Amino acid sequence: MNAYIPEIGKPVPRADAVAKATGAEKYAVDHYGDNIVWAGVRRAGVAHGRIRHLDTSVASLLPGVIAVLTGRDVPGTNRQGIIHKDQPVLADEKVRHCGDAVALVVAEDRATLQKALSLIRVEIDPLPGVFTVDDALRPDAPLVHEDHPQGNVLLKATIHSGDGQVALEGCDIILEETFHVPVQSHAFIETENGVAWQERGGKVALVVSTQAPFRDKWEISHALGLPLDRLHIIGPYLGGAFGGKDGATVQCLLVLAALHTGGRRVKMWWNREESFIAGYKRHAVRMHYHLGARTDGTLQALHCRLYYDTGAYAHLGGEVMALGMEHAGGPYRIPHTLIEGWCVYTNNPIAGAMRGFGVAQVSFAFEGMMDLLAVKLGMDPLELRLKNALLRGDRNASGVTLTQSTGIADCLTAVQHHSLWHERKAWKKEAPPFHKRGVGIAAVFNAMGYGRGLPDSALAKVELTPEGRIRVYSGVSDMGQGNTTAFVQIAGQILCQDHTAIELIQPDTERTLPSGSASAGRTTYTYGNALIKACEELRRRLTGRAALMLLSDTLDDLELLPGRVKNLATGREIPLTALAAMMSPEDRVCISQFLMPVVRDKLDTGKEFVIGFPHLLFSYAAHLVCIEVDELTGVIDIKAYLAATEAGRVLNPQAFEQQVQGAIAQGIGYALSEEVLLQEGRIVNPDFATYIIPGALDIPEIVSLAVETYEPSGPYGMKGVGEVGMNGPLPSIAGALADASGIHMTRSPLTAERVLAALQNQQEHP
Amino acid sequence: MNAYIPEIGKPVPRADAVAKATGAEKYAVDHYGDNIVWAGVRRAGVAHGRIRHLDTSVASLLPGVIAVLTGRDVPGTNRQGIIHKDQPVLADEKVRHCGDAVALVVAEDRATLQKALSLIRVEIDPLPGVFTVDDALRPDAPLVHEDHPQGNVLLKATIHSGDGQVALEGCDIILEETFHVPVQSHAFIETENGVAWQERGGKVALVVSTQAPFRDKWEISHALGLPLDRLHIIGPYLGGAFGGKDGATVQCLLVLAALHTGGRRVKMWWNREESFIAGYKRHAVRMHYHLGARTDGTLQALHCRLYYDTGAYAHLGGEVMALGMEHAGGPYRIPHTLIEGWCVYTNNPIAGAMRGFGVAQVSFAFEGMMDLLAVKLGMDPLELRLKNALLRGDRNASGVTLTQSTGIADCLTAVQHHSLWHERKAWKKEAPPFHKRGVGIAAVFNAMGYGRGLPDSALAKVELTPEGRIRVYSGVSDMGQGNTTAFVQIAGQILCQDHTAIELIQPDTERTLPSGSASAGRTTYTYGNALIKACEELRRRLTGRAALMLLSDTLDDLELLPGRVKNLATGREIPLTALAAMMSPEDRVCISQFLMPVVRDKLDTGKEFVIGFPHLLFSYAAHLVCIEVDELTGVIDIKAYLAATEAGRVLNPQAFEQQVQGAIAQGIGYALSEEVLLQEGRIVNPDFATYIIPGALDIPEIVSLAVETYEPSGPYGMKGVGEVGMNGPLPSIAGALADASGIHMTRSPLTAERVLAALQNQQEHP
Repeated sequence: MNAYIPEIGKPVPRADAVAKATGAEKYAVDHYGDNIVWAGVRRAGVAHGRIRHLDTSVASLLPGVIAVLTGRDVPGTNRQGIIHKDQPVLADEKVRHCGDAVALVVAEDRATLQKALSLIRVEIDPLPGVFTVDDALRPDAPLVHEDHPQGNVLLKATIHSGDGQVALEGCDIILEETFHVPVQSHAFIETENGVAWQERGGKVALVVSTQAPFRDKWEISHALGLPLDRLHIIGPYLGGAFGGKDGATVQCLLVLAALHTGGRRVKMWWNREESFIAGYKRHAVRMHYHLGARTDGTLQALHCRLYYDTGAYAHLGGEVMALGMEHAGGPYRIPHTLIEGWCVYTNNPIAGAMRGFGVAQVSFAFEGMMDLLAVKLGMDPLELRLKNALLRGDRNASGVTLTQSTGIADCLTAVQHHSLWHERKAWKKEAPPFHKRGVGIAAVFNAMGYGRGLPDSALAKVELTPEGRIRVYSGVSDMGQGNTTAFVQIAGQILCQDHTAIELIQPDTERTLPSGSASAGRTTYTYGNALIKACEELRRRLTGRAALMLLSDTLDDLELLPGRVKNLATGREIPLTALAAMMSPEDRVCISQFLMPVVRDKLDTGKEFVIGFPHLLFSYAAHLVCIEVDELTGVIDIKAYLAATEAGRVLNPQAFEQQVQGAIAQGIGYALSEEVLLQEGRIVNPDFATYIIPGALDIPEIVSLAVETYEPSGPYGMKGVGEVGMNGPLPSIAGALADASGIHMTRSPLTAERVLAALQNQQEHP
Repeated sequence: MNAYIPEIGKPVPRADAVAKATGAEKYAVDHYGDNIVWAGVRRAGVAHGRIRHLDTSVASLLPGVIAVLTGRDVPGTNRQGIIHKDQPVLADEKVRHCGDAVALVVAEDRATLQKALSLIRVEIDPLPGVFTVDDALRPDAPLVHEDHPQGNVLLKATIHSGDGQVALEGCDIILEETFHVPVQSHAFIETENGVAWQERGGKVALVVSTQAPFRDKWEISHALGLPLDRLHIIGPYLGGAFGGKDGATVQCLLVLAALHTGGRRVKMWWNREESFIAGYKRHAVRMHYHLGARTDGTLQALHCRLYYDTGAYAHLGGEVMALGMEHAGGPYRIPHTLIEGWCVYTNNPIAGAMRGFGVAQVSFAFEGMMDLLAVKLGMDPLELRLKNALLRGDRNASGVTLTQSTGIADCLTAVQHHSLWHERKAWKKEAPPFHKRGVGIAAVFNAMGYGRGLPDSALAKVELTPEGRIRVYSGVSDMGQGNTTAFVQIAGQILCQDHTAIELIQPDTERTLPSGSASAGRTTYTYGNALIKACEELRRRLTGRAALMLLSDTLDDLELLPGRVKNLATGREIPLTALAAMMSPEDRVCISQFLMPVVRDKLDTGKEFVIGFPHLLFSYAAHLVCIEVDELTGVIDIKAYLAATEAGRVLNPQAFEQQVQGAIAQGIGYALSEEVLLQEGRIVNPDFATYIIPGALDIPEIVSLAVETYEPSGPYGMKGVGEVGMNGPLPSIAGALADASGIHMTRSPLTAERVLAALQNQQEHP
């Protein structure tokens, strides 16, 4: 049988496909172990209050209960949080949202656990809560964190570029609008969970569904006061995450529990409701836009005010807003901008990272403004976008000069040349009775990486095993996006080995090396760049060591081939197994680091951002959607979807398309139905019967066009493609609705109820 | 106290100076251990013969004798040899020189050992022996190795360049002469020795005075049939070696002994006589030269026939002769050459590697021819040499185009401008009564590295230790030449650490990595090149990992400083100890390989050489010596010595000068007194009472000029300087003698007896 070498550019099947399809691959949730015990959490159930009394005595006495722990039992700072450590592992004196953990129970089985949790008596004196940004910003508002120097404002920041809002005054046309987007849930299949145990010697091991196993170590160490070298985190493949597992969920609770089980394994697994209540969410945002342009459509000035509701704890709220602000001007040249942002604490559930990280929200607003402008000017909306599209070398709305690949114009052109676009008028005319048809487009983009102020780094490690195989140790999680497959392709490309000879080790703080979080579209880019260097070094080593065995005075003739090194001049070969036996263990391992480049522009456009602003690299997309609106029900039916995506070079067409399709599906849910409904900080719809995500039948056939460029800093020219697709569906569908009906919706999701109400309102007030 | 950073170009004190001066450093010979036992060898004492009877029974029964072993007890092939494995560890059926080992004894103490060795009864039927090259080449000569396909010829080889000897016919002047050089002993202070022991699990460890610890593993494995992974070789600093410890001496014997001591340590230490009898030597050579030139002094053609007496076993005989042949034309342009070589087995002691490896011999002949030519033409001998000196870009006498640094003309010019040269005539006139004065010069060169056909490779390994120190693991021995100090300088230069924070690990097959032998002027060049890359990678790692701890998004601001990494932009620092604690053990180790480049010329000048021809790199020197000859005794008194040496860039002026001075001292011994005297293969003068090496008072003040060039392939531009100095004293002193007396000696050493006889002969036959 001939070797199959996984290579760059090939549609290599996913490395995890067979194991996942057959159930052989173990997610964190599949980890159990003999003699396992269960841990669970009693939640506050109150959005804001002071704990008057907490009585765990009855629960503790229940047979089968191993431990009942409260804030007093947390040995460290009892504080977690990626940037700001403001979230208790177990509440101490007050609770700030309904999902706050008040007590932790460890029991022999799940039934006993539930019973014990119900036996804990918690008496909380309610405090007045803040549940909207406006409430929170009132001067006399109750404070979520009494000790926060800026009251309920986690971060107030400004981007000021060119002449700022002053430039609006000189514009031919000024448009103004306000947009609202709601809280969205990640709705991953595998809810938050893990298994922990204390090893002999005191080290605690934790298998956990996480996007950041190495950061988890720091979080746990800080919160629980455990030295870093007492923690061992193992992060298997995730059953989805989308940002919701970037940050501590079960981590500190489980390690705390493991300190009380005498070495027995302890498992915690949030059910769907708990995942809704206690897990992180996408920020709800209110967005006020003023956009100024010339009569020929040239954008001139932008002023926006963005209000992000970050819930009870900081998590990545400030950074989510920063990224939203950086994208608030869209992928367009706007010489003058003033973008103001308020990221505000409330007593709502915690908002944090989610695919499209602050950008999905502003894309709705900005593209809505572009559609309004096109109508106002009577311009073709695609021409309007193309006219203003950023080119490489331009300054973007944050004042950053774009030095890297910048493909939005190419994406728009690809859409423009597609039959769905140039045959749209004919198609729209054939709408069935009581239906309207519309075609919408959106131009979107999404930054990659952490941005300035933080090292965005990966350390790749690759080994020739004693058996002569290639083992790649990835310290960055694969939550389903397929970076693992790209790593196999890189190893195959450089080391020329059969796919069966390439193994992948998933994150493990004792085997793999720190490589940052699986987030920000950075995994393949950052780890991939490091892996290229590590594999090239391993190739050099293997041919160099083979030269010693084959007595060759030059490397020029030596080629690494599947399972062997061959001297092409003499025909002599040495198997990799023999080479491995001759090499010392440390010599069989190559390690390389990659540190993502950052913007070198000396900028003064965004002073308040300590980290995460600005970004050097962006991926781009132009989306087109054809919809049919049922005038009798308000239901939007998506008839066709086209995405032209520029994310540098495509390493694996299949994996690229999967990311585009997945993001668009999630974006369609965000556009049409997904909304976490809150009443006084309590989630009304914490389940999939009432929180509606699209099913397979709700998702249209998606045509994905790859608009390839070559990003010089990327591995083989690639950029991240995981997020940009998320940002297009809501604005393009809203645009299609406007195209079909003339109604410009400014509040999402575009549910049938809302659409029907708007249609009726339009009929009543034409 | 300020840090002292060892750096390139500084006269950094030897890294081993203090430990050696205080006796703290342990040479192999300083290794003992509790409960140690002793091993020794019974030698043949017969130059050629067949073992009729070997009775060890009486010796075995002596109390305190642990084992008596013969050839039958050797479990493997019982054959050792670097290229040709033709030398038994313990003789089987025949003996081929007096030093052949016949039996191995292990005893509780040295007295019992000596007694037991004397109790072994060996009866050998003598065979007719061959003791000269002429004897050996006779068609009916007795064969040293009956199974060798070419009889007593180990290697017959030819270098043919241009029109070869045919060109002699067209020359204006043809000179002819024959030269003889004798056997020389390495005369190192620390004679051959080691300590071995079997560990639990069966592995055998060996601490041994060796130039090639990794090759020793292969030798022992092959000879004794032990798997490579059962052998662990440790090679401390050597008390001298000069080529004499390149190849197995005590290695196989000691490991064999260790298999019979039940885990007790066993020590073998040859005394001076045994070292003379059984150790390796410099080849005696007979050299016939025909040199053709134009009347203006331009060299035209060369024909030489070189006869190397390699003794009883191959060792590196063929390679020594190959290098001699490659240098037989001197550092000059000679368009037409035919150089023929015969390397011949005899029943003399084994000849092999020694500093100047075949080149010290031909330098005498070639420079003798140049002096004769200068006299014949009435030319200034320095002008004659300068006129013909090789320049970069020229083809040398082997037909190789010189692409690398080629500094012989610069060296000659440096001598020419020195007062010793241009004031020589006045100085000579002031000779005291009954003395004659003369000034001689020599232009010499010496190749570096193994040459084509073998990988000349080193693998450097450098570690950040858990204590935050830098540890360099050298797999290449330091026999005194000072490469260790150069390695400390390289680490200091790149990693900017205080000299007290840099540690060096000497060769150890389980801690350091294969880096070839300490020979061929290659150690600093080859390992140094590898170490530069390893240190650069470590520097990258340390700043890269520091970026993660200091939260820096760029490496540009991070500097590695003594004991810490500093962010120059923020002033924040992280100590190397903290960095080490954060890095995994494998991440703290960097490994890099360097493979020496080889000649890329497609050549057909030397077909018979499988390995070791031709070479890419040469170091050059011009030597000048002022002597005074006592006409009444024939004693040559060296009054002044000047060496201008080109070995690329000088990394450490002090170490450079030490190598030059040491080589010249050894060369003066070779020129004036050192000669191993043989009678029927038996050494007549196996001790320092009769084999005369120069003492400190015999060595003049040596002026060493460094003629610096930059060798692009070398570490910081350097080349090896260890050997070239060896080649100058004999020809320059012979030239000075001719200048003083008109006598051109063609047989060395130039002992008082020989000189006096020549002076008397000159008086009698003016």
